[in-house]
Amino acid sequence: MTNEETMLMRVQNSFDRQGLMRHLGARLVRVESGLCEIALPYSEKVTQQQNGFHGGSIGAIADIAGGYAGLTQAEPGMEVTSVEYKINFLAAFQGGELHATGHVVKAGRRLIVTTADVTHVAANGKESVCAVMQQTLMTVPKTY
Amino acid sequence: MTNEETMLMRVQNSFDRQGLMRHLGARLVRVESGLCEIALPYSEKVTQQQNGFHGGSIGAIADIAGGYAGLTQAEPGMEVTSVEYKINFLAAFQGGELHATGHVVKAGRRLIVTTADVTHVAANGKESVCAVMQQTLMTVPKTY
Amino acid sequence: MTNEETMLMRVQNSFDRQGLMRHLGARLVRVESGLCEIALPYSEKVTQQQNGFHGGSIGAIADIAGGYAGLTQAEPGMEVTSVEYKINFLAAFQGGELHATGHVVKAGRRLIVTTADVTHVAANGKESVCAVMQQTLMTVPKTY
Amino acid sequence: MTNEETMLMRVQNSFDRQGLMRHLGARLVRVESGLCEIALPYSEKVTQQQNGFHGGSIGAIADIAGGYAGLTQAEPGMEVTSVEYKINFLAAFQGGELHATGHVVKAGRRLIVTTADVTHVAANGKESVCAVMQQTLMTVPKTY
Repeated sequence: MTNEETMLMRVQNSFDRQGLMRHLGARLVRVESGLCEIALPYSEKVTQQQNGFHGGSIGAIADIAGGYAGLTQAEPGMEVTSVEYKINFLAAFQGGELHATGHVVKAGRRLIVTTADVTHVAANGKESVCAVMQQTLMTVPKTY
Repeated sequence: MTNEETMLMRVQNSFDRQGLMRHLGARLVRVESGLCEIALPYSEKVTQQQNGFHGGSIGAIADIAGGYAGLTQAEPGMEVTSVEYKINFLAAFQGGELHATGHVVKAGRRLIVTTADVTHVAANGKESVCAVMQQTLMTVPKTY
Repeated sequence: MTNEETMLMRVQNSFDRQGLMRHLGARLVRVESGLCEIALPYSEKVTQQQNGFHGGSIGAIADIAGGYAGLTQAEPGMEVTSVEYKINFLAAFQGGELHATGHVVKAGRRLIVTTADVTHVAANGKESVCAVMQQTLMTVPKTY
Repeated sequence: MTNEETMLMRVQNSFDRQGLMRHLGARLVRVESGLCEIALPYSEKVTQQQNGFHGGSIGAIADIAGGYAGLTQAEPGMEVTSVEYKINFLAAFQGGELHATGHVVKAGRRLIVTTADVTHVAANGKESVCAVMQQTLMTVPKTY
């Protein structure tokens, strides 16, 4: 296997264990060194009171995209857990899909800092900024 | 109706429209002036890869608890939308329930600042701190 | 020496080494287990373009108050460094003093989470909320 | 005057009124549409207890760089005030200069969201990442 395939398997293996992501209908789109992209199609499972994507669902995929971007930089046998994140919501959207792309800003041995951009992709392909996130991850031994 | 009943109806009416909250199994526990408490029972719908509550589900109920605490302070005909929030995760939990309690720190005409505490309540009643959040809300005209 | 005296000396010793705090005219007011209070008198050294306290000076004392609250919980031989913080500004003030009080929310071996409240104290004694902060600290070996 | 000159004057006029920036020795380096860069030379006025740049001084120039990036996008007669910011510290530095560069992510009529990168520039010209910030600004009428 190439390094890219190994990274993808490492992330896919963890992603598939997440009940929340399965339940919301999210999928893993792309994994590269220091980068991860997650997609979340619109459905009645992810809405707020005005029928837009719920901030909670936007935050969840941003958190995950940043976390898995970080996981690609963690040493073998380690995984990462979110210490904290901060997210700004820039616009509300209905329909289409959200794409959250996480990027590693700095990977230390104990802590990894990431950012994520969330973009809305409408049914007609139009892309618009939806949210930006900044996050701190901690490396922890993998226990499963 | 008393003021307390009016506030509860205002929040319950909005909460019931949130597809994400319904699907995750969250429920509205308490609404007072400047305060809102949301509960989220453990289920396979809210888990991460190690079977604990997912950061995304913790963030979602903290965001909502802060948001509805803010809604109790918004002028009639207005509702609130999250500008941004920042959450720190303090410990991981399986089973039992999470309770997120939002508090208004300062309510302005345009912006409302809140904090929320998320507590884990185990099956045996033991309570433990799970997360803390700090949030900015914006008031917007109600459109539904 | 009592524990309280030891904690105070530990914090005072570090505080006195901070050129920024000396230069801005800040002083250490109170140190208790898991708590630290810093005061900053108004002067032309700490202002923004409208002659109010500068967000940068508010952020600096909030960061320090949280950090030293955390230091009281760090093991002997360790000190703390700020991983990140997030601050909301609630109102602008001129004159008087700012008091930033940091509180430990959770102290782990590697990471400590704190919050801080910044209050304005006017010349006539009137107190008003100015800012709230949430912060992550990391423990590191003391090297001086 | 060109638009660029007008923007620069607008920012310089405000910057020169900030007592904190003058006293710390910061200077305005660059102003473009949606961008502002601030430099802060190392001195004993900006240090923490280990003689590195103080988190408070790093936060102050990041806040200002983001704020003035936002100001370039505000309507005539308006200025901006920081609602909140969140900053991650990535590494500690002594000597040389810090450069904080703010970028507008989204400019709305009421709120503007920015990010800033803080880079350390050593005496020998070596550049290293120091901090990243994410910020919310509010537009307010200019009163001076």
